[in-house]
Order: sequence, then C-alpha cells, then structure tokens
Amino acid sequence: MIAVLKDKATQEQVDNLVEWFTMQGLKVHQSKGDYCTILGLIGDTTKIDIDLLKGLDIIESVTRISEPFKKANRKFHPEDTIVDVGGVKIGGGNFQFIAGPCSVESKEQIEEVASAVRKSGAALLRGGAFKPRTSPYDFQGLKADGIELLLEAKKTTGMPIVTEIMSAEHLPLFENVDLIQVGARNMQNFELLKALGKTNKPILLKRGLANTIKEFLMSAEYIMAGGNENVILCERGIRTYETYTRNTLDLSAVPMIKELSHLPVIVDPSHATGAARLVKPMAMAAAACGADGLMIEVHNNPPKALCDGAQSLTPEQFDDVAKRVMKIREVI
Amino acid sequence: MIAVLKDKATQEQVDNLVEWFTMQGLKVHQSKGDYCTILGLIGDTTKIDIDLLKGLDIIESVTRISEPFKKANRKFHPEDTIVDVGGVKIGGGNFQFIAGPCSVESKEQIEEVASAVRKSGAALLRGGAFKPRTSPYDFQGLKADGIELLLEAKKTTGMPIVTEIMSAEHLPLFENVDLIQVGARNMQNFELLKALGKTNKPILLKRGLANTIKEFLMSAEYIMAGGNENVILCERGIRTYETYTRNTLDLSAVPMIKELSHLPVIVDPSHATGAARLVKPMAMAAAACGADGLMIEVHNNPPKALCDGAQSLTPEQFDDVAKRVMKIREVI
Amino acid sequence: MIAVLKDKATQEQVDNLVEWFTMQGLKVHQSKGDYCTILGLIGDTTKIDIDLLKGLDIIESVTRISEPFKKANRKFHPEDTIVDVGGVKIGGGNFQFIAGPCSVESKEQIEEVASAVRKSGAALLRGGAFKPRTSPYDFQGLKADGIELLLEAKKTTGMPIVTEIMSAEHLPLFENVDLIQVGARNMQNFELLKALGKTNKPILLKRGLANTIKEFLMSAEYIMAGGNENVILCERGIRTYETYTRNTLDLSAVPMIKELSHLPVIVDPSHATGAARLVKPMAMAAAACGADGLMIEVHNNPPKALCDGAQSLTPEQFDDVAKRVMKIREVI
Amino acid sequence: MIAVLKDKATQEQVDNLVEWFTMQGLKVHQSKGDYCTILGLIGDTTKIDIDLLKGLDIIESVTRISEPFKKANRKFHPEDTIVDVGGVKIGGGNFQFIAGPCSVESKEQIEEVASAVRKSGAALLRGGAFKPRTSPYDFQGLKADGIELLLEAKKTTGMPIVTEIMSAEHLPLFENVDLIQVGARNMQNFELLKALGKTNKPILLKRGLANTIKEFLMSAEYIMAGGNENVILCERGIRTYETYTRNTLDLSAVPMIKELSHLPVIVDPSHATGAARLVKPMAMAAAACGADGLMIEVHNNPPKALCDGAQSLTPEQFDDVAKRVMKIREVI
Repeated sequence: MIAVLKDKATQEQVDNLVEWFTMQGLKVHQSKGDYCTILGLIGDTTKIDIDLLKGLDIIESVTRISEPFKKANRKFHPEDTIVDVGGVKIGGGNFQFIAGPCSVESKEQIEEVASAVRKSGAALLRGGAFKPRTSPYDFQGLKADGIELLLEAKKTTGMPIVTEIMSAEHLPLFENVDLIQVGARNMQNFELLKALGKTNKPILLKRGLANTIKEFLMSAEYIMAGGNENVILCERGIRTYETYTRNTLDLSAVPMIKELSHLPVIVDPSHATGAARLVKPMAMAAAACGADGLMIEVHNNPPKALCDGAQSLTPEQFDDVAKRVMKIREVI
Repeated sequence: MIAVLKDKATQEQVDNLVEWFTMQGLKVHQSKGDYCTILGLIGDTTKIDIDLLKGLDIIESVTRISEPFKKANRKFHPEDTIVDVGGVKIGGGNFQFIAGPCSVESKEQIEEVASAVRKSGAALLRGGAFKPRTSPYDFQGLKADGIELLLEAKKTTGMPIVTEIMSAEHLPLFENVDLIQVGARNMQNFELLKALGKTNKPILLKRGLANTIKEFLMSAEYIMAGGNENVILCERGIRTYETYTRNTLDLSAVPMIKELSHLPVIVDPSHATGAARLVKPMAMAAAACGADGLMIEVHNNPPKALCDGAQSLTPEQFDDVAKRVMKIREVI
Repeated sequence: MIAVLKDKATQEQVDNLVEWFTMQGLKVHQSKGDYCTILGLIGDTTKIDIDLLKGLDIIESVTRISEPFKKANRKFHPEDTIVDVGGVKIGGGNFQFIAGPCSVESKEQIEEVASAVRKSGAALLRGGAFKPRTSPYDFQGLKADGIELLLEAKKTTGMPIVTEIMSAEHLPLFENVDLIQVGARNMQNFELLKALGKTNKPILLKRGLANTIKEFLMSAEYIMAGGNENVILCERGIRTYETYTRNTLDLSAVPMIKELSHLPVIVDPSHATGAARLVKPMAMAAAACGADGLMIEVHNNPPKALCDGAQSLTPEQFDDVAKRVMKIREVI
Repeated sequence: MIAVLKDKATQEQVDNLVEWFTMQGLKVHQSKGDYCTILGLIGDTTKIDIDLLKGLDIIESVTRISEPFKKANRKFHPEDTIVDVGGVKIGGGNFQFIAGPCSVESKEQIEEVASAVRKSGAALLRGGAFKPRTSPYDFQGLKADGIELLLEAKKTTGMPIVTEIMSAEHLPLFENVDLIQVGARNMQNFELLKALGKTNKPILLKRGLANTIKEFLMSAEYIMAGGNENVILCERGIRTYETYTRNTLDLSAVPMIKELSHLPVIVDPSHATGAARLVKPMAMAAAACGADGLMIEVHNNPPKALCDGAQSLTPEQFDDVAKRVMKIREVI
C-alpha cells in the first residue's frame, strides 16, 4: 500500500502516522519529494481501512498494491480450487454444464427437462424456486414447492441440483440442495453471504449487475472468511448503455479472475444476452476463453415458460450447443 | 401496452393471443401492416409479465405505455405524499435535513453530533449501526449496541432517528427506530423489501448503485404492495466510468421521479461524491432542483471517523451548508 | 414505427398528423384506446426524424419497429458482404488476421514484424502512423513518414496494409493504403465518414468508446450512403465501470451485429483488454463466437514499444495465438 | 508519479530504469519492500508516457500523483480564467446565458428568437448550422447558409454568436463567429482540436458522451498547448444505463473541474436531459453548484423545430428560467 502525504503535513503528523502504521504491524518506507512525501507500507495491509486513511487531512491519496482479498487470492493459493458438488467436480480442468429451466413449474416439466439435459451431457440440474423479480406483481416462483420438485427430480435422475436462495431465513429449505446460488441482486447482501459462510454447502455466486471484479472477489471473500471455501463464481453479464442485449457479457472477466483467484469461474450466457439465439455463440466463446463450466436455461417448451422464455433453449438446441462446446474444449 | 407480432404469425396464433389478452381483462386493438401486426392493449397491464410475452415465438417486441408501478405512480395519486417520521413531516413542501455520523462510535460522539446538527436545523439524526462494507475485514458497525446509542441520543435530543437495516431478521432491534433505511446494495433485496412492507414504519429507500429510476420505483412498489406506503426515496449517486467522484450524483432523477411518483425524494450528497468539499455545492444544487430533503454526514472529528471520513463535514461546515441551502429554498 | 398520441390530442391535431405521415408516403393505422391513440406507420420510415416527432406536443412516445439503417441492414441484403482488401477477402466465411505494431517506429521494426506475422498466417499488416493520444504531450506517430515505411513493408512482403486516418485532409497520403481505419474516437466524426464514403477504399470502422451497436451501424451507414459499401466493422471494447481491463470487450456484439447486418465483423482483443496476457483467450473466444477476423498488436520488442506496449504480443506469442485460433475455426 | 516494480526485477534493470528517469530530468526516490520496489518520481512528469512505462516487463503499476494537464491546471494558474467572447466575459464571477435554437432554420426564426432571449438576459446567441446527426438521413443543418443567418442576427441584435464546427476544413466560414463550439462527438477529434489551438478564437468545448473529467481537461489541453487559452468547458450529460433522461447530467463535475482547473465551466441542461420540462430545475441546480453560465435551447415554436424540439423552451419559458436562475445566483 502506498500513501501519498500532502505537502502541508508537518513532521510531527508524519511521525504520528508512521507510528500508527508500525503499531498495525507494517513496515514503512518514506521518500520525501518537493511537493509530497510518499509512504510505502509493507506487510499485511488487508485489514487497513482505506477509507479511513483517505479521510485523514494530511493524506493526498492511497493506493493498494496487493489485492484486499486473501482467501480468494491466487497469490496465497496458487493451485486451482476444485469444488465438489454432490460428486460432480468443477474447476481445475473439470468443465461442467448446469442446465434446466428458469423456473420450476411442475413435476412433469422439471423431470422432462432434467432427463433431456442429462442425455446431452449436463451434470447439474438448475431450476428457480425463489425468483427475484423487479416487479412485485410478476411471478415469484413456486418457493418451497419448487424445491420439493427439484429434489424429486434429483432422486429420479441422480443429478445434483442448483437453486437460488434469497434470504438466510430460507436456509433450512436448502438442506438437500447441492449448490446454493446467490443471484446478481444479492451479490452484496452481506448478511446472506455471512450466513452462507457458516454452512459447508457449495455456493454459486453470481456477479452483480454493476459490480467490479474486485467487489465480486470481495463478496466471495465474505463467504470464505466464514470458513466455507466452496465457492464457484459466475459471470452473467454486466449493465452497460447497450440495449440490443439484456446485459453485456464480460468474457474478459474469465481469464482475469482466473489470474487473480484460484476459484472456478463459470458463465451464464442465457441471462447475459437475454436471447436464445445468442446463447450458442456465447457459450462457445466462454469455453474458448477458459470458463470452467456453463449455466444454460433449457425449457421443454420455451414459449410457454413463465419467465425468461426468450432466453431458454429447447432440449434439442441445448444438445447442439453442448456438442459444439465440447469440441471447443478439445481444442483448448 | 403495445405488442408487435412477427410477419410469420398465423391468423390462428393471433386470434389465440387476442383471446388470452381479453381473458386478462384487456381490450385489444389490432392494426395490420405489410410486415407486422400491431396489438394495442388497453386496460390494467401492470400484471402482465412482459418477459413472458417477449418469449412467445410470434412476438417481435413489446412496449409498455403506462408504467408498471401503481401505488407509487403519480397518475393514480396526483398529490404529493407527506411522510411523518416521529412527528417530522417530509414531502409536499416540507424540506428536512437528516444529519449525523456515518457510523455510531460512542455515546459521546453521537450525542455531541446530534446536539450540534439540531442547532443548525437538522430534524432527524442519522447514524450507522449495521454497516455494509465491501470487505469482510472492514469495520462492520456496532450493530445492536449502535442502535442503543442512537436511542439514547434520541431521548436526550428529542430527534427521531434513522439507521440502516441489512436483514429482515434484525427487525425486532428496529422497533423504536423512526425511519428505517434500506441501503443501495439492498435496493433489490426483495425479501427484505417484502418484510418491510408488512411493517408500518417509514422506510428510507436508497437507489441502487446501478439501478434505473424504473427499478427504483418498482422497489418502492414492493414495500407499498405489502401495505406500507410510508416510503421516502433517496438519490445517492450511480455508478459510471467517472473516477474523480465516488459516484455520479444523478440530480435530474429528482424532478424526473417527482413527475412519475408522489413519494418524497431526498438527496445524499455525502455518499454520492465521497468528498466533503463537494457536499456544499451539491447540497445547494439538490435543493435548487426540488429535493424534499438532504441526508448529510457530519462528524465531530472527521479525520478520525472509522469509515467514510473523507466525506463527512464538521458541525461548523454543516451549519454553513444548512444556512446556504435554506436560502436556496427561499428562492424556489 | 409506432407513435403513441397523448390523451389530450384533439381530433383535428390527429388528422393533421395523419395527413403529414401520408404525405411522407406512409400508410397509417389508428387504434384508439381509453387513454391514448396509437398510430402504426407502415412503409419506409428511415427518413422520418424521430426527434422531430418526439418534439410534437401531442406525442407521448415513438418507437421504431424496423431499424433506421438501410444499406447496412441484413433485411435488405441477406447475403454476407465480402470485402476485398488488396486481394485479401474478409467476410462470408473468409477469416483473416491483421497484425502489426501499434505504432510504426522504423524500417527495421515494421519489416521485421511484417515478415514474422506473415509467416504465422497474418494476411494484412497494421501499423499506426497517425496516433490519437489522450494527451497532446504523448507520442503522436511518425505521420506521413510512418505511411511511407508501411508502403515499403508492403512492397517487401506483399501484404496489404491497414492504418488509421484522423482527418479527411490527410486522404491524399492514404492513396496506396489498402484498408483505412477509423478509430474509436472518430466513429462519430461525421465529416470524416462522409469524406470516406466518397472514396472507393475499404474502410475499417472501429466501434466508439461508448457507442451502441445501433450508432455503430448508423456510422457505417454514413459511409455506405456516400456510395462506398466496403465497410468492415471492428469491436474493440466499450467503456464500463470495470477497471481491471482497459475496456470491456463486448463479444455478444459479434453475433448480434451479424444478425442485424451483412457487413464483416472483426475483433481487436489487444485494445479491448490492454493486456498482452488476455489477448490469447479473448482471440480464441472471438473466433468461437463467429468473428470474421482478428486485429492483433505484435511488436518485435514489446517492452520498448513507444505506445501500448503492455498489450502487444511478441511474434512468438502471436504465432501461438494464430495456431490456436485456427483450431477453433476448424470446429465452428 | 509512483512506479511499483515487480519482485523479479533485477538490480541491474532497476538501475537502468532509474538512470533513464534521471535523464528525463526527474529525481527518483527508491523504497524497497519484501515483495516490490517503489520508485517515487519527482519533477515534471507530464511528458512521461504512462502507457510506455506500464508496458515494461518489470513494472507492476504506475500511478500519477500530479495531473497530466498543465496549462489547464489550477495548480499552475490559481486565478479563474475569464474568457472574453466578443466583449462578453465568462468566468471569474461572470455568469452568462447562451440561448437560441438547436438549428438555425430561417432569418425570421433566428432573429425572433435572438430578440426574445436578449430581452430575457441572454448575452450570447447560439444556433446550429452544421449539425452532427446519428443518421445520415436526418437533417444536417443549413451549413454555410446557417452561419450567414447567424451573422445577420448578430448585426441586428448585437449579440455575439456561438455555433458548432465539425471539421477544421470549415474554419474559414467561422471567421466572424465569436465562440466556436466543439460538440461532444468531436471532443477527442484531436486534429480538429489542434487546428483550433492555432486560432485565437474562444472555444466552447463540450464534454464527450462517455469521457472522464481527466480526458475532458486533456482535450482542453490540446487546444491550449497550441497557444489558444480561450477555452470554456461545457458539461452536457454523460451516457449511463438510465433511459428516462437522454443523458445523465453530471453536475458534480462542475465543482470538481473548478477545483482542478481555472477554466470557466458552463452547463447545457437542454441536451443533458432531452426534455424541456427538466431544463428549469436542472438550470437552477447548475447555477446553485457554481456553473459560470448556462446554454439553453430556445425556439419560437418548439413543436415544429427540425431537431431536438422536445428539449427546447419557448421564449416565455426561457424568461421564467432566466429569472429563477438569477435569484439563485444572488444567493451564492
């Protein structure tokens, strides 16, 4: 960490600050210029509150050299983390498809989709039971009943299941869920993250609508700091001014995150683009740039889906996408 | 609502869709062109799921004419709503200052600040007890103890208090809090919004980091749909590519929201800019464009604040800002 | 095009407007609801100025159904356009590498790079002679001398050359340049686009820093409207709030543009990411989602490049990227 | 400027780099830590190309302490610059209204508007002759004829005139124009900026659609570096994801720029919001936060304006806005 002090800082003020840093266990190197004094802080600066420093009257600017995340940081954990989801491995060379409908609607629907996507190579079944919707008047999911239907489909097909949690109070309902998803709108719901950090469940953390990669990794750090290191990250598009696509899929985040962190990174091309016809090219691109898996919406009857139908593939389309993606995987 | 059908839609498909709209209680006007058919839907379309429609194979595009919010909509409630917070009125011509430290730190601190800002004209005392922080290693607030300190300051000064809630599970601690704040990161924490909708507490809803005005009003609608219509909206800056200021304060949102909705709108120039020296000009600008109040961070000793110190004013600076803002209020 | 009229519009006003539309050669379908009247406009609406309409007092909103671009529109030109650049074909299944240094520095440099990238499969040689730099104090390129060096390298290697133009006044210098590049900052320099529209040179149009796909295609339309239909589009990253990468590469723009337009689309992963180590994964992803080519910065000695060195590959790295990309091309 | 070197940098590499910095006239302070070496560079670093440094293999990061703009920098020019536009002073406490139609349409129109806005206190007359339009099929302005009509209105009313230039080739037509406007889309048309830097005309530089304050000041620096220091800056809204307003007016840029630079800053609330009814509140807000002037679209018959009518005020509305703004000015 580098702190630049203002010209007007007195020697006494500088000495006090240096003493305070030393008390925090840091080594301090000073270099004094014509217009400012530069302090180089060496040691574990993750616990230094950068906003507090910036608030000091004598500080011109503060810059972190090392990243503020620790447990998620590849520097301190060079090998890829492999997360085991009900026997299915993700990360460290293990690429997986997570597929299923946006919302669980009925026993027939979820089992039909599950059986279809499993045949095409999907390892995990997704389905929304609790649905975050912008409008209170839109369909909010089957909730507990939806989870029940997923669990039945899990029994029938043997596929581990993935579904979204919207409140820590619902945790008891997720006891048999294999991978708990935190949606984009809750990426910085810190109370939820802390509660999940106390479980030992694999967590699928989606990037927030307008969150930076650093904030994304800090949210993973919230879960990991609680003791749960089974975190899978999911890039699902960020908000920009572009309107042709629902969001802008930030694929460069995949290699960037893999450089910064050891956690697995998957991509959700369905929510990112909001359009079924763009899922295939973006799924292939995600595989090509090193994603550890794909999360794709599949519906047995897309036009009738209760939500997000426009972005769901049919099982036949998913089968085609899966085949093409696997060929890309062979190349890389 | 206007639905444009694709050229390839058969007459039977069109008829089925028109019948379905009619069953939802809507009147449908058709106009048929060379390349597409346009359906104009008249009636209460707030309960129509626009994503469902867009998912239908025969639909080219769907556009809402009327806004999807109802209870928050000025069309159906032309007069300004006035929210009563422990006897202090906000909205409908009632302009108020909410002031206090970012975080409650100690009895002395909160009472000293409270007494100072009350003298300068602040009607409500703010102070953070539960603090949402990007890093799990940063100071997270005094939590329940912080609320206790706020309640004591309320007794001493008679000022109603405002503090942020981060989880519905904490609601019992907020029983004597006068105005419950929902922070930017929880603006779309729909489970929290629903829980608050079931209380009769005034709610201060902050705009999300990267949320549109429409989403902001839909989140207010979540609270109001539950029966609690005491909602105050707070513009606090949005995320853009600009880095000199922490966020970009979107002041045009103030007159825009007041046109769309009857709810009071206040502005938080402290968080928006992240810099104490920008608080005064932006506070004056907010008053000039019609805000119903200001929420300003004040600390008795800004450089030592445990968080966000760089954006806190001293009591003397706050006094100056309050005086200038009141002069602007006289002009408008 | 759909125009929604306000409730308060009198019958006379509506009639006048309908008459005006009819005079523009459009057919008008009216549907009258409780709160508004909807006009469906059928015919060639590309010449209707949507801002003019929105300005009319009786208009609530105006929505285009068909896109405002014509010559660039796939609807009116379903087959892929293939652009011939000095004998090298791009588009319609023809995939090409454009490679070379950010700036032309010397005869030795440009010829060494040219010869290296040609061996690795690059078909076109790029090199900056006129350099748009944010600061007037940064290196602005060798200008006319840089173009001379490129032309010599063209003679030596036989590779057609690509270089950026910054002003229509420089056009005489570009007489023997095979593909003239319009940079991101000039994407809406309409006077330059018009001047290029009057030439018969192939144009490489880069997407602006914060321009939508629609604006991008409208800028292509400026060139094409002048009579020059040899336009190649280049996605090079857009500006977002993310700071780890220089820009956010919007790869979903590739399949999206190919759906909307018949023009070839290439991708520049070097400028998009600003980091040499991200070029390889993003180049592979671009190929996987259907790009017609790649523009990659290669320098014989990256750390010493006068600009943008951090994003340049060595010839060896380029050779590796080219090989991997070609394998991806075989799959798709 | 601070350069952080990677751990792997050898002593020889560090020594070479330090020597190079010294040759550039900089003093270098080194501080060596466990993981990195920090170099503090003291002296005139504006001519150091930061991208070049970042490209060096041994560099971890580079941060500027002082801003890269010099002539526009308040540090080196503490007093406010006052620009004289045909006898009208702007800046340093001189507040002015610039008003007129979006496009010059006819002699009657421009003279009627000019006479009306002058009565309401406008000091400068604006009117578009060359119009940058997204579509090549939209009205492009009366061009040279439009400038002629402005010059006639200048004679009749005595008001200095402001109009936009789109290409340096048109400069001869602007000989008698008092203030030459560079539009948002040309803010980084560096060839145009350089050409204007060689004139002695006052320049009104508008902020680009998605440009940072730093880039904005660097573009002013381009003009000033050529010798022309008569630059007025104009905030006119930036591009965000919000769609209710055309752009997001970044009013915090006003006090921020005034801190960084001595140049006058005005605000254009008409283009920023795109809606006539938002012009008044935002004009008042702009005055309240310290703008040196306002640029407002006024049309004698807004609904018939050939472009941007939706954002134009009538002369009566402008008169009301001007009166309210002057009252705000009295307060601050």
